[in-house]
This record gives sequence, structure tokens and C-alpha cells, in this order.
Amino acid sequence: MANVVIGVAKLSPIAVRLIEGKNFGFLATVLRDGSPHVAPVWVDHEGNVILVNTVVGRAKQKNMARDDRVALSIANHDNPYERVVIRGRVIAQTTEGAEEHIDKLAKKYRGADKYQGSSPDEQRIIIKIEPARIS
Amino acid sequence: MANVVIGVAKLSPIAVRLIEGKNFGFLATVLRDGSPHVAPVWVDHEGNVILVNTVVGRAKQKNMARDDRVALSIANHDNPYERVVIRGRVIAQTTEGAEEHIDKLAKKYRGADKYQGSSPDEQRIIIKIEPARIS
Repeated sequence: MANVVIGVAKLSPIAVRLIEGKNFGFLATVLRDGSPHVAPVWVDHEGNVILVNTVVGRAKQKNMARDDRVALSIANHDNPYERVVIRGRVIAQTTEGAEEHIDKLAKKYRGADKYQGSSPDEQRIIIKIEPARIS
Repeated sequence: MANVVIGVAKLSPIAVRLIEGKNFGFLATVLRDGSPHVAPVWVDHEGNVILVNTVVGRAKQKNMARDDRVALSIANHDNPYERVVIRGRVIAQTTEGAEEHIDKLAKKYRGADKYQGSSPDEQRIIIKIEPARIS
């Protein structure tokens, strides 16, 4: 299924500000049985591409490997009524640089120099999401 | 599709506390084309049933009428690392009492006596969700 190209949207200034702030994203994906899955995530971006960092084998990672379509809602922690919902698709998943990237996110969200939740038997992975629609 | 019964879970004390607090839920549903949808929602409960209030015809309402499976993440606003993800299914949608219910939610979330976002051409509806799995 999936791989329906639904165009590319430019991240709006509000979306960029919310992503750059210490705000959580709630990432929706679809499980194998077609039911929805949602998980809180730390968010980052590289130009117009949204970055999420997870662990290989987690439900959301496997969901996005199977079906590249995602929806992501990000609300301003200090004003939850300022928010965006982004629909898009995963354009890449890469383990390259994923350890450094989770440390960068731990710095942003927790002020920590190093991410504390790592486990030696877990492989971090960066998910790259291209926005298709922003509301 | 859907209507796969996946059992009923009892709302955990943390889930109840998060729902009763002034915390947002992020509700994931599945669009007609099988892609995920996510929307921030105010949350309430009636015993073990989670209540969400929306407008007839909105994407999430139509999604839940088509496929009763949902996922809902609720984080503590004051400590976003305290959170639950609930998977469940919609057991009812009703417009009965939905106006009073949105006022109740406006009181809880905004301290308002009446919900300010109503429009005469919109019909409010209560979505009743039975939890199946809580993590």
C-alpha cells in the first residue's frame, strides 16, 4: 500500500518555530492491521525535512518502514492552542548519525549533554519526513 | 474493515489522572485512504469510557464512523514524560448532550462558562471510546 505521492508542502514559519521550540510532537502511523498508532516524539528539522529519532524495531519505526505515510501534531507547550498538524511521508530512515542526533535532542529537550535512555542492545534511527500538507 | 474486538482494558490510575487533568489528548484515526490522521482533543471520561467531543463531519469523526479503531496519547502538561498511550475502539457516537458536554470541557480547559467556538451550522458530537490496551 501507500507511496501515493501527495505533493510537498513548505514548512510554515509557525511549524518551524514549534519544531525548534521545546515542544513535543505526536506522531501517528498505521499498524500492520490498519489500525492507528500514536506516540510522543522529540522533533527536529533540517531545512524542510522533519527529523524524528527512534529505535529500530519499535512499532512506529516498523510502521513507517511498511507504510511511509504519517501525521504529526505539534503544539506549543506554553500555549497548546497554537499548533500544527502535518501530514507527510517518510523519505528516509537512517542509523547514520542517529546516536549524535539523539544527544542533540536530549540537549534541546532535557538540557543533558548525552541522551540517558540509550541501551546497548538498541539501535537508534533517524526518520526523515517530508511534509505534504500543513494545517 | 475493523470491528476486530481486541478486548477491554481498565483505565489505569495514571490514565484517569491524566484525563481528569487539564491535559490534551492526541487522537489518531485512519483516513479513508488508509493513511493516519492525528488531532489534538480535549478529553473526559465516564467511568471506564473515554469521551471526546467534536463536530459532525470533521475528518476524525468521519474516520471513526468508518473504522472504530483509535489510538490516543495523553501527556501531563506539567511533566510531558508522564504519559499514556491508549488504543481502543469507538463504542458510540452521540449528539445527545454534546452541547452541554463541550461547555463542560470549556470550563475544565479554559475556565469558561460556555464554549466559545460554537457555530450555528455545526453539530457537536460525543465520541465514546472503550480502551483496549494502555501503555
